[in-house]
Amino acid sequence: MTEREAVGIVARPSSGIAEGLALKAAEVLRQLGVEPLVEAETAAAYSNTLGKLGTFNIERDPPHKVIVIGGDGTLLRAAIRSGSNEVVFLAVRAGKRGFLLDVDESVLSERIRDFVNDKYELVLHQRIKAYVNGNQLPCAVNDVVIFTSEGSMVRLDVYHDEEKLRERVMGVDGDGLIISTTTGSTAYSLNAGGPIVDPRLDVIIITPLNPVQLFLRPVVMSRSNRLSIIMRDESGPAYLVLDGQVKVNLRPGDRVNIYPCEVPLKVARFEWWSNYYERLFARLLSYW
Amino acid sequence: MTEREAVGIVARPSSGIAEGLALKAAEVLRQLGVEPLVEAETAAAYSNTLGKLGTFNIERDPPHKVIVIGGDGTLLRAAIRSGSNEVVFLAVRAGKRGFLLDVDESVLSERIRDFVNDKYELVLHQRIKAYVNGNQLPCAVNDVVIFTSEGSMVRLDVYHDEEKLRERVMGVDGDGLIISTTTGSTAYSLNAGGPIVDPRLDVIIITPLNPVQLFLRPVVMSRSNRLSIIMRDESGPAYLVLDGQVKVNLRPGDRVNIYPCEVPLKVARFEWWSNYYERLFARLLSYW
Amino acid sequence: MTEREAVGIVARPSSGIAEGLALKAAEVLRQLGVEPLVEAETAAAYSNTLGKLGTFNIERDPPHKVIVIGGDGTLLRAAIRSGSNEVVFLAVRAGKRGFLLDVDESVLSERIRDFVNDKYELVLHQRIKAYVNGNQLPCAVNDVVIFTSEGSMVRLDVYHDEEKLRERVMGVDGDGLIISTTTGSTAYSLNAGGPIVDPRLDVIIITPLNPVQLFLRPVVMSRSNRLSIIMRDESGPAYLVLDGQVKVNLRPGDRVNIYPCEVPLKVARFEWWSNYYERLFARLLSYW
Amino acid sequence: MTEREAVGIVARPSSGIAEGLALKAAEVLRQLGVEPLVEAETAAAYSNTLGKLGTFNIERDPPHKVIVIGGDGTLLRAAIRSGSNEVVFLAVRAGKRGFLLDVDESVLSERIRDFVNDKYELVLHQRIKAYVNGNQLPCAVNDVVIFTSEGSMVRLDVYHDEEKLRERVMGVDGDGLIISTTTGSTAYSLNAGGPIVDPRLDVIIITPLNPVQLFLRPVVMSRSNRLSIIMRDESGPAYLVLDGQVKVNLRPGDRVNIYPCEVPLKVARFEWWSNYYERLFARLLSYW
Repeated sequence: MTEREAVGIVARPSSGIAEGLALKAAEVLRQLGVEPLVEAETAAAYSNTLGKLGTFNIERDPPHKVIVIGGDGTLLRAAIRSGSNEVVFLAVRAGKRGFLLDVDESVLSERIRDFVNDKYELVLHQRIKAYVNGNQLPCAVNDVVIFTSEGSMVRLDVYHDEEKLRERVMGVDGDGLIISTTTGSTAYSLNAGGPIVDPRLDVIIITPLNPVQLFLRPVVMSRSNRLSIIMRDESGPAYLVLDGQVKVNLRPGDRVNIYPCEVPLKVARFEWWSNYYERLFARLLSYW
Repeated sequence: MTEREAVGIVARPSSGIAEGLALKAAEVLRQLGVEPLVEAETAAAYSNTLGKLGTFNIERDPPHKVIVIGGDGTLLRAAIRSGSNEVVFLAVRAGKRGFLLDVDESVLSERIRDFVNDKYELVLHQRIKAYVNGNQLPCAVNDVVIFTSEGSMVRLDVYHDEEKLRERVMGVDGDGLIISTTTGSTAYSLNAGGPIVDPRLDVIIITPLNPVQLFLRPVVMSRSNRLSIIMRDESGPAYLVLDGQVKVNLRPGDRVNIYPCEVPLKVARFEWWSNYYERLFARLLSYW
Repeated sequence: MTEREAVGIVARPSSGIAEGLALKAAEVLRQLGVEPLVEAETAAAYSNTLGKLGTFNIERDPPHKVIVIGGDGTLLRAAIRSGSNEVVFLAVRAGKRGFLLDVDESVLSERIRDFVNDKYELVLHQRIKAYVNGNQLPCAVNDVVIFTSEGSMVRLDVYHDEEKLRERVMGVDGDGLIISTTTGSTAYSLNAGGPIVDPRLDVIIITPLNPVQLFLRPVVMSRSNRLSIIMRDESGPAYLVLDGQVKVNLRPGDRVNIYPCEVPLKVARFEWWSNYYERLFARLLSYW
Repeated sequence: MTEREAVGIVARPSSGIAEGLALKAAEVLRQLGVEPLVEAETAAAYSNTLGKLGTFNIERDPPHKVIVIGGDGTLLRAAIRSGSNEVVFLAVRAGKRGFLLDVDESVLSERIRDFVNDKYELVLHQRIKAYVNGNQLPCAVNDVVIFTSEGSMVRLDVYHDEEKLRERVMGVDGDGLIISTTTGSTAYSLNAGGPIVDPRLDVIIITPLNPVQLFLRPVVMSRSNRLSIIMRDESGPAYLVLDGQVKVNLRPGDRVNIYPCEVPLKVARFEWWSNYYERLFARLLSYW
């Protein structure tokens, strides 16, 4: 239909608002002479509407540009599924909440035009990856959380995992632990007592969850640090949750390694850094 | 064997230390002319040693005096199982930790003698009880915890539950919520940011768990307050945990009512209030 | 002018809004056949308007009913100055903030009529009093704060001060310490990490200020506890601040005793307990 | 006496322990063929002993190597006084506490020998500098603190201070605010709720002090950020304290600018990063 490259669309399932915005986005793309392609799961969720368009597989061969419509979880899940494919996302908010999603309905057409025409600021969200007993998991945009699965106490130790350096950073007896990126510093880590960390820094935050050790505090260190977390023999069972999307069971003796990801999440933003902290604190206040 | 009433023994299972102390306690009792009776589960756990003594059923007809040997969990579980039976416990620590258990091995014989001869201070630990959708659970010494079961966000509201007063106390979006007694104020609630509350007060503490609402703080109110906690329709699944011992699944729409228990946990103590806060802070420092 | 007893008026100085409301209050009182009397300092602050009315001395012989117009500080100061005189206050908010002041301009006439006609709920705010080296200070409605005066570290110990019991509750190295009433639990103590405590309880809260001892937590105990706070020899200088109104210098070796006050602050309230927590959290959110 | 360059000595005043260690250090230096020079204030404080040695002026022309003996404050003060002179410090602990001072008496001779022979790890502590209404203050190793001087509420706003960017980061109504370096993240900022930040990062931490805004959290950002803090017109009076050593009065309308310092504090260390976090948490536990 055109020589311009097709643009993908991912929408949160079971949301009339997301569906409506996705249909509008498809229409705007067509008017710009760009073919809209719908991600396969999204197409299946809305078979009568979006399902009638062409589709793509986000794990195998996503378009270079993808519009994500929903909440923070929709973007986090799309980021995980797209793996190491080269994708730039446009993040559209369907509903009131969500800080990672900066485009709302009122400017949808305009932002899609800018997106197609490469008129945006490319914001890189640095990620971390986890290995559970040597098995690599997808990269996380927000956080890797180790969390009690049955309410019993999780006991673990965090070590540096460098060639010559295997020193302990902290021991935690409690509900678990968060390893957060800077992007995640305003998500779950913040609720658990972690600091707000400027996302332009290349660091991670280790936030213990309700530890028995009352003197423990969140620790901020370079993202280049390689960490190794060992579940102690006397620990209760836990699970590892990656961006709230992927879950893996952990048992005493299990080892979780945390390393930096090379490829960041790439999002097309518009005045993202303008009044960043005012917007952030306004969002923190919006929960009531 | 004697006209003195038999004294019961409960010991933590799978603990050589607890088993040894229990055998020693039985011997001390016999020397005092008191028959030792072993709780049925304890007898089964140590069939070759304690199992050879006479037994009792703690749910049906426990002796008026029972020696509990183990950690805090052993006492909490014995308290739950004994229900509304009239029991005074002697709390013996088997191992290093545990704040509720004030008798250690070095004074075991002496304290058992005092216990048998009614030479102790009776300390009452006020309790709370929970109803889940109208079904009553046992009384809790430490806390009733509502906790995410799958790591997804729990959304709930806490209301006053008086005849004419059904006002909201707080809404929580987070990992859940603790309703703690004063005894529990130095247990899980403390790790989650709650205050230390003098156990001579008759109050409860509502401690939200890692709430999205950053302005939320723990609330202390009279134990006579009747509370009603409603799981919102959009909440993730949760479970209710009572003293870390009893677990019940909760789903959106479920209702948990919290009322005062009439019968407190009764423990024979020795200089319990002497240097209470020094002992408490020393214990808080002992975790490392 | 009438057989009805005169009603006093206290207004915050240097506030056109408070002045206007005070003049309106005086007019409403006169229409009800009640003589308005203006507190002497208020009369001096507004000599051209309120100063033309009859006056009273709040320390010596205040009327039994006094209307306070301003912010929380205006009420706290009037409470301190009225000492142990029998006074019921009507608390009128002049401006946006202030939680202790429940009457706003829109219902001023109506509430004054109710006040004059004894149609109100009498709410008692329990107080504490401090002795500095044996010298008694006025009763505090919110808090007694010990605070570094030069930014150097304050080092102090808090003891029980009973006849036979002089045990330590906690030692603090930091910016100081707050002893708060339940009313004060939503004031400075809350900002310093203290819990929200239902004002219907008869307790105090000890909140350490930025202590070096990271394991320290706020402690809630009965208001009947008598406390003794000793400034250690190696402490930096401090001052004691009472309700943010009265200030006394403290040096190493000084002793501050905290005892319950017999006479509470009495305030005429209207639906004070109705939706108490919703109003409270709404106020906590109103700061931005 | 020798061709080796003289080494300076600074000791905490009024401390017999510091005096003894300083005399021992002087003796060790002489045995190594190095002339000990005593800083002028130190010489005056110990005129009968150290005062008999040759002296130097730390502001004007300090030796390239200086041994500091005392507590953290002694080092911080020496760092401030030495200004932008090229100095490497050896940090000797006189007493039990102090995390910045890693040499204790047991290894004093050995460490001085290593120091003289350049056998050490040079650790750089990045600093920040403050301007008050345009007047530059010395560089701070730990923190710049704005703190209420009379106990009344400080109200201020923190802005980015870049050429085109003057956006607000946060507004604080409370006791004040800390701008901390990574080195200072384990000092006062930690007591006030700030995170532990690895000192190998080049960041600062903004920690509000007991803010009325309960949703506020510490913020970590790049040290290259230039900040401007404005005391609001309605603020109470405050002072700025630099490393606990230098104090400047602040009034409403005053402006404090925070910029990075080019020259770090340089300290000769020995296995400084080895088991860094274990040592750190052990220190946090040593306060009781």
